[in-house]
Amino acid sequence: MGNIYFERVQAIRRMMADNGWDAVVIGASDPHSSEYPAPRWQAVQWVSGFTGEAGDIVITADHAGLWTDSRYFIQALEQLQGTGIELHKTRQPDSVTIPEWLAGRAGIVAVDGTCMSVSYVREIEKAVASAQDDRICKVVDVPDMLDSLWTDRPRIPVSPIVTIGEDDAGESRQDKIRWLRDFLKDNGCTSILLSSLDEVAWLLNVRGSDIEYNPFVISYLYVSADDIIWFVQKDNARIPDQDTVDSFEELRSDGVEICSYDETGVRLAAMDQEAGRMFIDPSAMNDHMYRYVTGIFGLDGIMTGKSPVALRKAVKNATEIASMEEVYLQDGVAMECFLHWLDTRVKAGDRVTEWDAAVKLGEFRSRIEGYRGDSFATISAYGPNAALPHYSTPVHGSSVLENHGLYLVDSGGQYCFGTTDITRTVPLGECTSLEMEDYTLVLKGMIQLSMAVFPACTAGCQLDVLARNALWKARRNFGHGTGHGVGFYLGVHEGPQSIRQDFNSQPLLPGMVTSDEPGIYRQGQHGVRHENILLCEDAGTNSFGEWRRFKTLTVCHIDTSPIVKSMITQEEAEWLNSYNASVYERLSPLLPAEVSAWLKDRISPFNIQGH
Amino acid sequence: MGNIYFERVQAIRRMMADNGWDAVVIGASDPHSSEYPAPRWQAVQWVSGFTGEAGDIVITADHAGLWTDSRYFIQALEQLQGTGIELHKTRQPDSVTIPEWLAGRAGIVAVDGTCMSVSYVREIEKAVASAQDDRICKVVDVPDMLDSLWTDRPRIPVSPIVTIGEDDAGESRQDKIRWLRDFLKDNGCTSILLSSLDEVAWLLNVRGSDIEYNPFVISYLYVSADDIIWFVQKDNARIPDQDTVDSFEELRSDGVEICSYDETGVRLAAMDQEAGRMFIDPSAMNDHMYRYVTGIFGLDGIMTGKSPVALRKAVKNATEIASMEEVYLQDGVAMECFLHWLDTRVKAGDRVTEWDAAVKLGEFRSRIEGYRGDSFATISAYGPNAALPHYSTPVHGSSVLENHGLYLVDSGGQYCFGTTDITRTVPLGECTSLEMEDYTLVLKGMIQLSMAVFPACTAGCQLDVLARNALWKARRNFGHGTGHGVGFYLGVHEGPQSIRQDFNSQPLLPGMVTSDEPGIYRQGQHGVRHENILLCEDAGTNSFGEWRRFKTLTVCHIDTSPIVKSMITQEEAEWLNSYNASVYERLSPLLPAEVSAWLKDRISPFNIQGH
Repeated sequence: MGNIYFERVQAIRRMMADNGWDAVVIGASDPHSSEYPAPRWQAVQWVSGFTGEAGDIVITADHAGLWTDSRYFIQALEQLQGTGIELHKTRQPDSVTIPEWLAGRAGIVAVDGTCMSVSYVREIEKAVASAQDDRICKVVDVPDMLDSLWTDRPRIPVSPIVTIGEDDAGESRQDKIRWLRDFLKDNGCTSILLSSLDEVAWLLNVRGSDIEYNPFVISYLYVSADDIIWFVQKDNARIPDQDTVDSFEELRSDGVEICSYDETGVRLAAMDQEAGRMFIDPSAMNDHMYRYVTGIFGLDGIMTGKSPVALRKAVKNATEIASMEEVYLQDGVAMECFLHWLDTRVKAGDRVTEWDAAVKLGEFRSRIEGYRGDSFATISAYGPNAALPHYSTPVHGSSVLENHGLYLVDSGGQYCFGTTDITRTVPLGECTSLEMEDYTLVLKGMIQLSMAVFPACTAGCQLDVLARNALWKARRNFGHGTGHGVGFYLGVHEGPQSIRQDFNSQPLLPGMVTSDEPGIYRQGQHGVRHENILLCEDAGTNSFGEWRRFKTLTVCHIDTSPIVKSMITQEEAEWLNSYNASVYERLSPLLPAEVSAWLKDRISPFNIQGH
Repeated sequence: MGNIYFERVQAIRRMMADNGWDAVVIGASDPHSSEYPAPRWQAVQWVSGFTGEAGDIVITADHAGLWTDSRYFIQALEQLQGTGIELHKTRQPDSVTIPEWLAGRAGIVAVDGTCMSVSYVREIEKAVASAQDDRICKVVDVPDMLDSLWTDRPRIPVSPIVTIGEDDAGESRQDKIRWLRDFLKDNGCTSILLSSLDEVAWLLNVRGSDIEYNPFVISYLYVSADDIIWFVQKDNARIPDQDTVDSFEELRSDGVEICSYDETGVRLAAMDQEAGRMFIDPSAMNDHMYRYVTGIFGLDGIMTGKSPVALRKAVKNATEIASMEEVYLQDGVAMECFLHWLDTRVKAGDRVTEWDAAVKLGEFRSRIEGYRGDSFATISAYGPNAALPHYSTPVHGSSVLENHGLYLVDSGGQYCFGTTDITRTVPLGECTSLEMEDYTLVLKGMIQLSMAVFPACTAGCQLDVLARNALWKARRNFGHGTGHGVGFYLGVHEGPQSIRQDFNSQPLLPGMVTSDEPGIYRQGQHGVRHENILLCEDAGTNSFGEWRRFKTLTVCHIDTSPIVKSMITQEEAEWLNSYNASVYERLSPLLPAEVSAWLKDRISPFNIQGH
């Protein structure tokens, strides 16, 4: 058939036959469960040509399949043509998961355990074992399984690294390590192996760009009472500029030993295994490394649990909070310049595509000092395209904006003083009454959550309904979470807190930064999402206990023109008017005169009584 | 010292010494974890004189203690005087639980396992074992431990029983048993032993009055593919009247074998233990019975899980729903007659105590055909007394109602066609602005929850904040759940659903009946609670999925005079006006003319714009 992907599947089948494997499962993850795996770990794409962000492949002697969700059905069908790989739809009522599908169809299943989570591999193991086959049923872990076929496989990324001083991070790496050592002591452990890249970056006050959109460095970090070992590729590409200070030297002077990433296993194996007990978080570790360390240290030498770093990192310190306030102000400048540009262009009848708009917004952001790139791929979506919550704006052939209906833009920046995320839905002219209703209901939800006051120890899932209540009363809903944690010059999506329907017992703590982004999506029609970023604050103590509230960090006006006034309460109108007035007050000194004048016009208070 | 309770504790200590026990724990439960144990199981009261509803006793050679919560601190201190028993406060920040207290203080702990839950005994076992004492550490199960000392211990209650026909229950016992047998088959079990009294009553369509406020019969029920065995005391007292049909005959003709309650164990032991697998719900079974059946059938012969009966019982069928609607209408008649009486008496300056009012309300209820008693002890509380959410109105010396401030009445009836529960907070004259604010905020919460529309599969804990949001914004809160399930001529408190902050994954299903009762309590000042009962209904299906909403079953007006109008939204005012108008419309034909005229006056619509 000549299709390159068809040939690759055939080559994998020969490898399977040579090794006696009944099936291979190829996942879309990297060794650190990163949201955006580097090209080296895009094995699914190499095997199948499929470029969606989520999709796993299973190959047996007589079948090859790609499992992916509804976001990618059309794309998968197109990209899989001629590959012999069939689409398996996930998250449908009658979906069969990969482990379920394998049960009874395969005895020996090969996986690259370095790129699969502990829980995923366990699930496959359980499924094949449950089939009660006569065959031997097991999962074989084959690190870098495809290397012999994938001859031009990209290397492990090696980007320049920078360190962040105590003045900017609010806490020195020595203090963070001291805290971590106290945690280990309190929990009867002698060491910890961190594998989440954002945790390593936070703890060492170091950033890089090995991963797209995330300022991370591919590495592991080992900390014990005496040692700090950073397992990381070190070569010249790691040093940004000959003039600057060598970050590795700075780390070494703080007692951090630098060891090659490839030697993580060897070095751990050489440690005194009698010496104590290692803490690891299996939810953040790949299965290969998990088996490896439990093999070395024995089950008695390992304590598993939730990494304490994730929670500590999520609770921003005073310096980080001050920086985040500043970064959202600066990001607001870029946003208002962009919205002004957009309004002017569309009103003038200029041809603007979704892609043009995304590029222009990036340009405005790049003018901010300290800009380090986008925090995720900008979603720039007009009309029906906005009905896809994760719309990927194509470089070529993206839709042209017209002077009616709703345009949705969800974007964010990485800055050396913080990470931003914002969504605005912008009326480009006349809107239908359904567009206006949806715009209003989603906005009510965003405002209601913003205004919440709640007792200490309240979890996000206990507040989520506030963002949905108005939509629900109109029998409308959205299928994603309402809020995710946002890092400080780290990942734009972080835990452990969240605001969503799913149970998550993590309370919202003062210092946590979380998004507030309800939406609504109507296939073939339009999409609405409003997103502000909220800081959880102490709201005092009284006889009823301790209280928390949110402070909105986002500084960018909300267009009131599509609001159906009869659907808004006085309290919501007051919130909106006061928010827009404060946006103008804070941004106008920073904006070009024409943008400031334009903004003043956009935020004139509206009155529901006047309706 | 001569105190009778002091002597009883001493006698127990002699028994302990004779048997080599280091401690005894005496719990406040009965063999079926009933909310209102019959006098036979009020061992805590027999030992200590303490009459509170919650309290456990621990006795060691040199200490005797009663563990209870803040509701009963004052009462306990008074009642324990001279007994030598010390009060241990529970649910305080520095509280030490009974298992924690026992750890290290006792090796062999004796309990009456027939009156303690499986989980409670496990907790004690774990705690004493964890102390790593040199002593033998274990829990000894001594059924009816106190019988040799408690010579006048009451018998197992034996009240008349009645059966409910298919026309009234909506489903025959044969059909319910058929469904249960299907459940067993689907789950690979051959039998089930039910021990929750409400589950037995529901399944057999039988009611009694062995327990206060609950129309239950003390019994176990065994169901297998071939047998239905009801383990119950049968004597003449069970037959209400020589003229009526013998309920036992009716049950026998439906294939129910009647076996003595005392012989439950013997009969189970005589069964063919090779025959299959028994399903039991350990959360509903006492520890003694649990050990007994696992001893007989072996762990392989037992499957544990949540009893399927609880969920099925909570989802009312069409007949039950129609009956519940009728019972809430009739109960509304009693309530309005009572509120009219109260208003007239207080305005006339008559002397009315809290107790008088409770008695009068009971009188009005008793006039309804089918009335079978109250569904719990009426909380009739004026002024500061209402600040105790579980205030127990004393027969003698209860407060006299005055013509100002708030009076709270929480009450309900058992009727042969349903069970009711309602709370109204009633202004008896002028109120302080704080009383009015609290009244308004709690009412907003009750209304907001009533108005909720939500997707299928939403759990109560995901809606709870709707009843608290208004209070929280004013930094006020209440410390109890918002809603509990209500039975159909069964317990006034039932699961598995609830509406509260605690995580409970049980979705609210169409047919479930749940209370909506936010409140606020200010020690030494006042208490407010508004409670309506809500029926969960199907609210249609659209492109966003399946929807649910609530229908209010309670038919009793809400006094709008204490409302702070500026705090109410237009939507809430419309709900209130429409609710009160419908109460009048439905009740006026059933009320005495003077009450109807009075009610008409109370429900005149109020307008927030006019404020």
